[in-house]
Amino acid sequence: MSVQRWKIGVFDSGFGGLTVLRALLRRLPEADYLYLGDTARLPYGSKSRETIVRYALSSTRFLIDQGADFLVIACNTASALAFDAIRAASPVPVLGVIETGADEARRSSRTGDILVIGTAATIESHAYAAACRERGLRALEKACPLLVPLVEEGWLDHPVTREVVRIYMDELLGQARQSDSHPDVLVLGCTHYPLLRPAIEAAAAAGLRVLDSAEATAAEAVRRLKSAESAPRSVTPGQRRFFATDSIAKFQSLGARFLESPVEDIVLVDLGG
Amino acid sequence: MSVQRWKIGVFDSGFGGLTVLRALLRRLPEADYLYLGDTARLPYGSKSRETIVRYALSSTRFLIDQGADFLVIACNTASALAFDAIRAASPVPVLGVIETGADEARRSSRTGDILVIGTAATIESHAYAAACRERGLRALEKACPLLVPLVEEGWLDHPVTREVVRIYMDELLGQARQSDSHPDVLVLGCTHYPLLRPAIEAAAAAGLRVLDSAEATAAEAVRRLKSAESAPRSVTPGQRRFFATDSIAKFQSLGARFLESPVEDIVLVDLGG
Repeated sequence: MSVQRWKIGVFDSGFGGLTVLRALLRRLPEADYLYLGDTARLPYGSKSRETIVRYALSSTRFLIDQGADFLVIACNTASALAFDAIRAASPVPVLGVIETGADEARRSSRTGDILVIGTAATIESHAYAAACRERGLRALEKACPLLVPLVEEGWLDHPVTREVVRIYMDELLGQARQSDSHPDVLVLGCTHYPLLRPAIEAAAAAGLRVLDSAEATAAEAVRRLKSAESAPRSVTPGQRRFFATDSIAKFQSLGARFLESPVEDIVLVDLGG
Repeated sequence: MSVQRWKIGVFDSGFGGLTVLRALLRRLPEADYLYLGDTARLPYGSKSRETIVRYALSSTRFLIDQGADFLVIACNTASALAFDAIRAASPVPVLGVIETGADEARRSSRTGDILVIGTAATIESHAYAAACRERGLRALEKACPLLVPLVEEGWLDHPVTREVVRIYMDELLGQARQSDSHPDVLVLGCTHYPLLRPAIEAAAAAGLRVLDSAEATAAEAVRRLKSAESAPRSVTPGQRRFFATDSIAKFQSLGARFLESPVEDIVLVDLGG
């Protein structure tokens, strides 16, 4: 009797999506994983829709060519701006972090008022606001462009980071007060932000629950995969392969911070950029 | 009698090189200028040598195809990591900001001890240290990865920016004391940093002269062009054309901050990234 072993392609502009991979590995260690970090062209968050769509399509096409039979867009910016384009071009199912983040917000919120923080491109796309609206929620959004560079500088527990987070959160909470919103959920709309969770929780008002879409995305991916299974699943641990478009050495050192375990078997790929 | 009108190609990964263009326009308004900002692939400063060389070569090739007869590499990171590759591939003369910055440091320093701040890639290349050594100077270098994002966030005169600059400068000055160095010149090894000059001057020790290589590069370019002239120069004002690889709207708004005048006639180009 044949067994089924999923080959899951996880895509991010860089390292942040490794937090989604980490959550997937905990829940479904027996799948094979292909992770692509488009590190030569990061960050996506400061760029235009046209450029992000072009980059995301070439990246996901690469994962499909490598045999992925399920795609997780673990990058909020790519999910916000290129999800429809990726889904239209993909012969395999695609899951993005925005829809799963909004689903989780709906399950968690009592007031129906949600706060979202993310990169400039994610926030300017209003993809979270649209996904929240579809679920009967009202979202207030705020771009926080300095948080990714602070994480990449390694200033995770640092007075400057706490101050920058406080400034951004004060602006967002002030905006909520002015618009008579009563938020009880804050969505971390960027996969770098979970690394700043202590600073964000300290700056967030009491009673605001901080949600990270990595866990929600991993749970939803596993649910969809299980419902699509046509044969018993393999029980032996799967393989992990990593692909990066820039320096392998940097991917290895910075990636371990996000995956919380060593990153090995990395291949440098050229997507023509 | 024919007249000579130079067509000068100015290249940067983004907007910072517009400070060099501004200095050129003041000194040589009668030349034609082609400015390329490789905004779809910025920042270069966090990437590997191989990737930076590939991006810089395709960018400068574009300017040569557009008819540039003199190239200014107005990006410290590209000058640090790709200058030899660009010069080898270019049929026209090429000037980079590192050599002109080091020349200016030699003219300005009495002690022979120089401090340099720049992006991670520029500093890790030790291109400034090598250029200083060739000129009989000793350089201490420090990467300051948060300064570009702070400029792009527009926090030019902001307490967080002053604090980040103070932290970086304290580390660099501490390093100088430990190595018995007596620096009297600080080179701004990134074209974004002149926008932070007040914060940098406040954090620098008294007696440290802050040098910006934009002015030195423009002066050297004009000197070389004049010495190469074979016919009287045109005296009517030249044309300016701008090329960007990402959003024209963003180039227009952020570019004006660096050029200190409106940025018009921008063409979106695809370098295959």
